[in-house]
This record gives sequence, C-alpha cells and structure tokens, in this order.
Amino acid sequence: MSILVVGTVAFDTVETPFGRAERILGGSATYASLAARVVDAPVLLNAVVGRDFPDSHVEALSSRGVDVEGLVRDPDGETFFWAGRYHYDLNTRDTLATHLNVLATFEPDLPASYRTPGIVCLGNLDPTVQSSVIDQTDGRGLVVADTMNFWIENTPDALAETLRRVDVLVINDEEARQLSGQPNLVRAARAVREMGPGTVIIKKGEHGALLFCGDDVFSAPAYPLEDVVDPTGAGDTFLGGFAGHLARLGSTDAEAMRQAVVVGSALASFVVEAFGPDRLLSVTAEELDERIDAFRRLSAVPTIVAA
Amino acid sequence: MSILVVGTVAFDTVETPFGRAERILGGSATYASLAARVVDAPVLLNAVVGRDFPDSHVEALSSRGVDVEGLVRDPDGETFFWAGRYHYDLNTRDTLATHLNVLATFEPDLPASYRTPGIVCLGNLDPTVQSSVIDQTDGRGLVVADTMNFWIENTPDALAETLRRVDVLVINDEEARQLSGQPNLVRAARAVREMGPGTVIIKKGEHGALLFCGDDVFSAPAYPLEDVVDPTGAGDTFLGGFAGHLARLGSTDAEAMRQAVVVGSALASFVVEAFGPDRLLSVTAEELDERIDAFRRLSAVPTIVAA
Repeated sequence: MSILVVGTVAFDTVETPFGRAERILGGSATYASLAARVVDAPVLLNAVVGRDFPDSHVEALSSRGVDVEGLVRDPDGETFFWAGRYHYDLNTRDTLATHLNVLATFEPDLPASYRTPGIVCLGNLDPTVQSSVIDQTDGRGLVVADTMNFWIENTPDALAETLRRVDVLVINDEEARQLSGQPNLVRAARAVREMGPGTVIIKKGEHGALLFCGDDVFSAPAYPLEDVVDPTGAGDTFLGGFAGHLARLGSTDAEAMRQAVVVGSALASFVVEAFGPDRLLSVTAEELDERIDAFRRLSAVPTIVAA
Repeated sequence: MSILVVGTVAFDTVETPFGRAERILGGSATYASLAARVVDAPVLLNAVVGRDFPDSHVEALSSRGVDVEGLVRDPDGETFFWAGRYHYDLNTRDTLATHLNVLATFEPDLPASYRTPGIVCLGNLDPTVQSSVIDQTDGRGLVVADTMNFWIENTPDALAETLRRVDVLVINDEEARQLSGQPNLVRAARAVREMGPGTVIIKKGEHGALLFCGDDVFSAPAYPLEDVVDPTGAGDTFLGGFAGHLARLGSTDAEAMRQAVVVGSALASFVVEAFGPDRLLSVTAEELDERIDAFRRLSAVPTIVAA
C-alpha cells in the first residue's frame, strides 16, 4: 500500500535555548515522508521547492526511497522558508519569519502514478489545496490529514468542506479545542468526528496522544525525554509514521490504528533528539523496536491485586 | 497495614459552570480517608474541626469505618472553610474564600493508637505540621505526602526539611515545575527526588499521572470523562486511594506502586462525577473493578506487527 504525501518542503531556521540551526531541510512533507520510509512504506511525495533548493536535499530524499517524481521545482521563486524560536520550556515557540515564496502559488498536479494511493497523507496546508489533492486521486485511499489554527481561524468554511472528506484527522489539543469550541477533549473529539473524520487523533506533546476510533479510545503515553533538542517536525513525523505503519500493515481497523499511533509516537520521540530530520535518517529498526518496547513498559497497567 | 491520614476536614462551597454546592463536607483528609476506605484500608484520621461541625458528618466518616478518635473538635472556633469557583474548562479555579479558623492553631497530637501506622499519609498542610506528625510516629511507616504552591513559595526551608523525610511525594505538574525549576517533567521528577522522596508521582489532571519509582517510570492515563461535575478533592482522593491500595497490599515495591497509581486514578475519576465526596460513599467494588479494566484497555499498547 503506497502513501501519497502532500505538504511543504522547506528551509527552516530554528533557535532553541540549546542551539541554532540555519536554513536546514524542513517542511511537513519532508518529515512525514522520511518517517514513513523508516517503516518501509512506499512514499509518493508531492510538494514544491524553488530554484534555491539544492540537488543534495532531493538526493537525500530519493536515496531514502522517497519517490520524488512529484517534487516540483518552480524556477521562478525561492523555497518556502520558516524561522522560529522555541522558549525555554520547548512547549511554546515564536514564529520569526514565514516566507511562502513558491508555496504561495502551489497548485498540486499529481503525476499519473500518484493517483491511486492506499493512503492520502495531507500535511498542514490550505484546506482548498488539500481538497484538490483528494480530487485528483481515485478516491479509494484512506485520507489522513493534519491542520492548524491558522486555517481554523481564517478559512473555516474551506476547512469544513475538507473535513467532510477526511477519514483520520490528526490535530493537537489546542486545535481540537479551538475547532470544536469544547474545552473537554473527549467532547472535542466527539464534535470533530461529527464534522467528518471517523477517526480523530489528538496530539498532546509531552502528555502523549489520544486516539478515538469507532468505540475505541486509546491513550498513548509520551516517551519521557529529558533532552529535547528541537521539537520542529514532531507532529509531521507522527503523521508520517502513523500513515506509514498503516500502509505497511495494509490495514486500517482500530487495532491497526492503535499500533500506528505507537509507531508514530516512537518516531516523533526520536526526531526531537536532534535538529531537523537528522534522526529520521539515522534511526535503526532495532532502535525503533527498543523504543516501542519502552512505550509498552511505560504504560502497562498491572493486574490489581485486592488482598 | 493501617494508614494515618492527616490533613483538613472542611466546609467547602463550590461553584462550577454546571452548579453550586454550599458548605458541603470537604477537606483533604476527608477525601483521602474515604478513598482509602473504598479499598478497605484501616484509616486513622487526625484533623481538627470547629464547634459548627455537625455530628452527622462525623457519623458519615465513622460509619464508613474511618477511625475518628483523632478527629479533634476545637470548641473555640469554626471549621476550616474554603470557597472556590471553577472556570468553564474546569482546569482552573479561583479561590473565593479561605477561612483557616480552627486550622490556624492546629497542632497534631496523635492518640497512642495512631503512632505505629504502616503508612503516614500527609495531605496538603504546613510542612512544619507535616514534620511534627512524622515525629510523633515510630518512624517505621512509609511517608506519602502532598504539598502545594503556597508552601513552595512561602515556606521553602520548612518544606525542604519535610521533603527529606518523605518517601513518596504526590504533586501536580505545575508544582513539580515550580519546586524543581525545571520545565521538563522528567528532569523535574529527578530534581525533586534529589530533595528526598525516593518516589515521585506527578498528577497531570486530564493527562493522567507519571510515577517515578526506582528505575521504573509509569505513565498512567486519565479516564476520558465527558462530564466532570466538580474537580474538588480529585488529588486528595488519588492520594488516599494510592495509600489505601498499598496498605491493602502490604507492599511498597515498584509493582505495588504502579497498581496503587491505577487505583488512585480510578477513584479520582469517580469523585469528580458529583459534588463533594458523594461518589466515594456510593461507588461499589464492582464499579471500581470495571473502571480499572477500562484503564487497562485505554492504555494497552498492542503488539506491533512489522508486515
């Protein structure tokens, strides 16, 4: 089962209390694609870059097995650029710069070989663009999507339209509250599901994630990391790892979704250990297995003995 | 194994967006004692009330099997009174009134039969009073304690003194960050453990709880409640249920601590379903078992199939 990944490929400049990285490879589609490749899912990448995007970055993606036929180079502009600074607690950040550049006029036009994916994985993008991507597929793939407060605030109608076509929505807790108007996350998830997505995943950062799928509720822990170096891309990595595991399994039932949430969480716990997507390039299958075992030990509820 | 519970017995007036309850039975020792009794642990209650405290409340406690020999009535004053208003999200509250009344001059003087407890369970109180209680026991009991931002800010030296004598500290995430000066909760737990408590439990409300015990880290989920009626006493109920389960087991190893965290979390998930401690009086063993099963299903990490 292949995954169509649509999102941003970008240059990021990131400052944290522990260091700084300048114009490194970033973007939601970059993180999601590389994460899905860690679990060997076939990835079809659709995104746009500018004339300044080096061949070495394209090579980094294709050498990891990402299909880059749909990675469009727009010679008339520069690559999307984002700069941000994380605060001391790493849970909050200030955006210092957002230069849309070639992203401003990006209209996905999928190659023929991209039009029958098993999973359509939509990174944070204008919901109108997300809908256009779905339109260009054969409509049989599971649609897994992310969104952000910007679209919730500024394009609610377009977002509502897209949500009706989404199968699995992956958002963070603040976005779930904002989208639903419900402070209680269980109520928020219910309200969001009534907007379209049958399955909702609420990412809670250091508090893990909640999966609502059918009648099943799954509370996944967060890996207790002491040394977060750069939180950038953690959510996108979760998305790609989640979709990648479903693709690898070829299944989308509640049990598969639970597994996929753990895989996504484990990969996200690696990516924050270094600046940029570096850890997605270096993590081994053995390391991933060990981390998944750690998640299992971390959350295992013992038998309660009533003496 | 018996539990000595020391804390407040109070009148609470509680306002939430969903209702109001006036001068109902409250206080940290009330919630903790009743929670420990749900799991049949022998409870020795030490607290002070005023001349206005009705016999019916004493009867409510003793009829549940709480030993009230150490429940002192001070005829010269009124019972401790607290009033608070919860905001719409129920995660934040304003204190509207705190009348210490008889609590202002409370100096615990344990009955002889209270001096050899298996567990010393110290609710939120002046750390000097907490230390005085430990002094009056034979020193063999496991000391489980709660504290709050008030003492962290105003009596840091007395708190540090008490912490050196505490075995298990139970605090919320904001208090852990404040006490340690560390925004990262894993680092915060490590720093707090260096202050004395070998075991630290960080309560995270709707996000569950983290247990750090020996080399073990346990991430307990929160039960996904849609209808929280009154959060008052949830933390004290956790404390009492936690201590109660350890007492019932007669064990304090890491495995017992994990079990106790689940029992405390389950009882806390009941108490918030109604105003005051009512649900601790009505919950059945069968309901508790079902809720514990729900916690297990909620957090079960499946076997990850690598297709």
